[in-house]
Amino acid sequence: MSIPDEKIHPVATGRAAETVAKHQEPQELVFYAGWFCPYVQRSWIALEEKGIPYQYKEVNPYKKEKHFLEINPKGLVPAIEYKGKALYESLVLCEFFEDAFPAHTLHLLPQDPLERAYARLWIDFISKSVVPSVQRLIQAQDANKQREALEDSVKALRTVAAQVKGPWFLGTQFSLVDVVLAPWIVRDYIITEHRGYTREAVGADWKEYAARLENRDSVLATQSDKEHYAEIYQRYLRDEAMSEVAKAIRAGRPLP
Amino acid sequence: MSIPDEKIHPVATGRAAETVAKHQEPQELVFYAGWFCPYVQRSWIALEEKGIPYQYKEVNPYKKEKHFLEINPKGLVPAIEYKGKALYESLVLCEFFEDAFPAHTLHLLPQDPLERAYARLWIDFISKSVVPSVQRLIQAQDANKQREALEDSVKALRTVAAQVKGPWFLGTQFSLVDVVLAPWIVRDYIITEHRGYTREAVGADWKEYAARLENRDSVLATQSDKEHYAEIYQRYLRDEAMSEVAKAIRAGRPLP
Repeated sequence: MSIPDEKIHPVATGRAAETVAKHQEPQELVFYAGWFCPYVQRSWIALEEKGIPYQYKEVNPYKKEKHFLEINPKGLVPAIEYKGKALYESLVLCEFFEDAFPAHTLHLLPQDPLERAYARLWIDFISKSVVPSVQRLIQAQDANKQREALEDSVKALRTVAAQVKGPWFLGTQFSLVDVVLAPWIVRDYIITEHRGYTREAVGADWKEYAARLENRDSVLATQSDKEHYAEIYQRYLRDEAMSEVAKAIRAGRPLP
Repeated sequence: MSIPDEKIHPVATGRAAETVAKHQEPQELVFYAGWFCPYVQRSWIALEEKGIPYQYKEVNPYKKEKHFLEINPKGLVPAIEYKGKALYESLVLCEFFEDAFPAHTLHLLPQDPLERAYARLWIDFISKSVVPSVQRLIQAQDANKQREALEDSVKALRTVAAQVKGPWFLGTQFSLVDVVLAPWIVRDYIITEHRGYTREAVGADWKEYAARLENRDSVLATQSDKEHYAEIYQRYLRDEAMSEVAKAIRAGRPLP
């Protein structure tokens, strides 16, 4: 049986293709990415926000090439190579960018330890509650399971929405909490078109916050054309996707 | 129906009881804990390692008292109150102790950004692979599911074991990676007695590392008597526990 995900569109399109084109020169930091992946987009937004020099390399994680597997034995994007070392996991990378490039203009985490912990607490909530429920909603085939996952998703998002100080999650500072949410917000048209989700169901303030976030320059700059995402999500919507995330959701296991 | 977990032994025993007795005076940092909880033990070990002054308050999370729920609406331990603010989630707390008390002797994370990211990568692996598979192993009732969970647990632990530089995970520096593993290592006699697990199955080096870790002073100082853990684990072994972790494992959901 062929693995359908091997046939995905091979490269970024639209605004993201322009950003890729600007990041082809060799740099100390090599960013291994998959244009369609929401976890990649998190780290990519962080790189763009901080203005860190990087070389973009497109990887199809379903065709695991030798050098890439040497970098990341888990075979997942995003991953980086930096000073001869390899790192992966989107949140680990975002924290690394913050630690390794402190001189870069924008801080994605507050400097105050309590505020920083508060940001990490909500990033943890998004990872454990928002992302898995939205992913279950996309992959749910049965009407009851779809209804249950929709309720869970809206409930989790309302919990986040209640904490948004505006204009960004923490207030005036654009932070890693916004970065971590953004890729799922720009993709929520998939659950609107196919699973009955609306931003209004979360709340009027959420609708405004989501619109603000998807129009942030770093988010637009890492975004491919909608039709190509839709092509990929068709496999998730039929629960036929073979990515590690798709398999974890099917097996009721923690997301990788 | 009564919730069995409400009837747990109410307070720490053994060495942990001595530590609790030493931390009754009011302090700026109040540590809300449950003596039996492995997540609590992580944060507790970190407090002890760093020598941070704290006041210990025992909470039965199954009898959610009003003040505690105001501190942590999720109702989970560990939680802290510090300068009028509340925080929770064991890893968020450990990172907070590191950020807020930099002057305290021991650093639980390396100062080098690459090394720090490497530590976080393995903490992430432990959270996503070791803890859920061991928890599934404890709660699995069916022989096939027990065998599968045992294989997953040993495989995940071997992956960690292969990275242990010795004497500690990162080498000479005792770090948050060791802290995060320790509570599951000191409780592994449960899966040895009931699920056929042995440290030897992971490897001879692992057996030595595990013994070293469970004899670390901060680990001993936060440890209650074995018979009281065993009493609690009986409910998990029959898959009757009503904790959030137990319910998540039953439902095939991410751990809270």
